[in-house]
Amino acid sequence: MEPRVSLITLGVADLERSYRFYKDGLGLPTTRKPEDGIVFFQTSGVTLALYPYAKLAEDVGPGWDEPRSRFTGITLAHNVRERQQVDEVLALAAAAGADLVKPAADTFWGGYSGYFTDPDGYLWEIAWGAFDFNEDGSLHVT
Amino acid sequence: MEPRVSLITLGVADLERSYRFYKDGLGLPTTRKPEDGIVFFQTSGVTLALYPYAKLAEDVGPGWDEPRSRFTGITLAHNVRERQQVDEVLALAAAAGADLVKPAADTFWGGYSGYFTDPDGYLWEIAWGAFDFNEDGSLHVT
Repeated sequence: MEPRVSLITLGVADLERSYRFYKDGLGLPTTRKPEDGIVFFQTSGVTLALYPYAKLAEDVGPGWDEPRSRFTGITLAHNVRERQQVDEVLALAAAAGADLVKPAADTFWGGYSGYFTDPDGYLWEIAWGAFDFNEDGSLHVT
Repeated sequence: MEPRVSLITLGVADLERSYRFYKDGLGLPTTRKPEDGIVFFQTSGVTLALYPYAKLAEDVGPGWDEPRSRFTGITLAHNVRERQQVDEVLALAAAAGADLVKPAADTFWGGYSGYFTDPDGYLWEIAWGAFDFNEDGSLHVT
């Protein structure tokens, strides 16, 4: 197995709403349209997909379409190169309608970060510190 | 906001168990050890992190440490270059102790895929078809 996560798919309640949030609010690039039934965003390394929640559950199999708990156990992080970009990206997300569930603050690991939730309550941490960046923008993890 | 997901963190019940699954079972590269309290895997583009569930909830803030539903609403996909690699990776995961929740089968979108769950029940789809690969192994999404 090559070390690779190809896609992260978020099951969403309203594809149009989530498309607007990620495309217009956060500025993620895509040529796709909600009318296609699924939306892909080309990000560096991993593709972010939005797909209706019930259909995603159906794709896994019978019995998976159940209400989701507030905490999924999974967080996604967007790391920034400069400390003040944490505040900038959180402000961008808030302007796009995100709920800022944890204001930016110094972290115990020497960084600076905060969390927001997207329209479906999926958690994103915007973080600075601790990691260097590879040339492609990915984190340099030893 | 640069188009980038830097990290996917999975909240896990047993860090040692999950470390063994991803490192020894699936073969993902890391120099980290569970004793450090967090494990990072360097994959192409996005870093996969394992962190104790309660600590991840605590990092988000008070009130987030609640039982998780079986379906998180999020799936991770590992796409392969050749059709038969779907079967190979699913067999690798099964040998590592994964639960094959959906055997590999032809998909409605013209591909071939199956799902397994990791030791905490997080869903991974192993998929072939529909996408070309970029040079770095990421998907070419237009």
